[in-house]
Amino acid sequence: MELYFNPRSRATISKWLLDEAGADYTLVPVDFETRQHKTPEFLAINPAGKLPALVDGGQRLFESAAIALYIADRHPAANLAPAPDSPDRGRYLSLVVYATAQLEPAMGDALLGAETSSSRGWTDYATARGVIERELGDGPWLFGDQFTAADILIGSIFIWKRMFGGDSDGARIDAYVDRLLARPHALRTG
Amino acid sequence: MELYFNPRSRATISKWLLDEAGADYTLVPVDFETRQHKTPEFLAINPAGKLPALVDGGQRLFESAAIALYIADRHPAANLAPAPDSPDRGRYLSLVVYATAQLEPAMGDALLGAETSSSRGWTDYATARGVIERELGDGPWLFGDQFTAADILIGSIFIWKRMFGGDSDGARIDAYVDRLLARPHALRTG
Repeated sequence: MELYFNPRSRATISKWLLDEAGADYTLVPVDFETRQHKTPEFLAINPAGKLPALVDGGQRLFESAAIALYIADRHPAANLAPAPDSPDRGRYLSLVVYATAQLEPAMGDALLGAETSSSRGWTDYATARGVIERELGDGPWLFGDQFTAADILIGSIFIWKRMFGGDSDGARIDAYVDRLLARPHALRTG
Repeated sequence: MELYFNPRSRATISKWLLDEAGADYTLVPVDFETRQHKTPEFLAINPAGKLPALVDGGQRLFESAAIALYIADRHPAANLAPAPDSPDRGRYLSLVVYATAQLEPAMGDALLGAETSSSRGWTDYATARGVIERELGDGPWLFGDQFTAADILIGSIFIWKRMFGGDSDGARIDAYVDRLLARPHALRTG
């Protein structure tokens, strides 16, 4: 597998995931300065011209949530996903999708002080954070003792928020972020 | 299975999917006027307080992309998803995630004439439409002759755009929307 990578991109999430999965992969550096993410070669892999992108033999993937679902299911020994027939599968898929479809844009708006898009039907950050707080419960992870790809995707967003100097998200989420950062392969805040 | 439903919500996408899958389900009406989507009972299913939400025995799901992945994988006879070991699996997951994480918010901004969020790292509508045009190729569906859940999720967004009076998306996408609307269970534009 080849992960197209730049340390200043969401590809860092996919790298964390591959490392937790114990996957065999190489990083393909993508230089933003020379716009390598807009070349025909790269667009043939991800037509959106963004990172992350992953190639696995004849397969190509983009969007960090899709890469997470794929990697987790293909490395069952790492136990990063409830199995397809597990009673936790539905909630797992929901949280993985929620991370990039709702939580991430809401966090971005909050961090940048941008007008929330909730008037257009999107989720505001307080609501999205409340959803995660509730789903996390007493933790330590979103699925109790099982650390999953959902923790990586959702956790990365809270780690970014801390990295960019965001306010506390309350004791429960802050402690969750501390636990995430204690993992050897986690995104680093500094 | 119970699909929590209101005809004026994204739950219409999940209904289309369940119908294409030939799934056995019932609709549970959710009245927005009396704010049934904000009751403790409903929040215990989807803490985000939105539709769609799906209950399948002990499983609960929210987010239309998650519901799509779940339903498609659990109804293999309907052939709505490349199998987990298919060489198309990666692109399939990518497109399902792309639908709600990128295309849908971009379309919403375009339709409402809102300032695009691309300055904050999000995708503008012209780019997102270009991604789909490229992935669709000559069609008729995103995976050639195989109609999948990705067509339902992505197609629903273009159908909505037409429903709300959006401009043409060019001959290729417009013809794709016509094909989608010709399916018996498709979202209706009016």
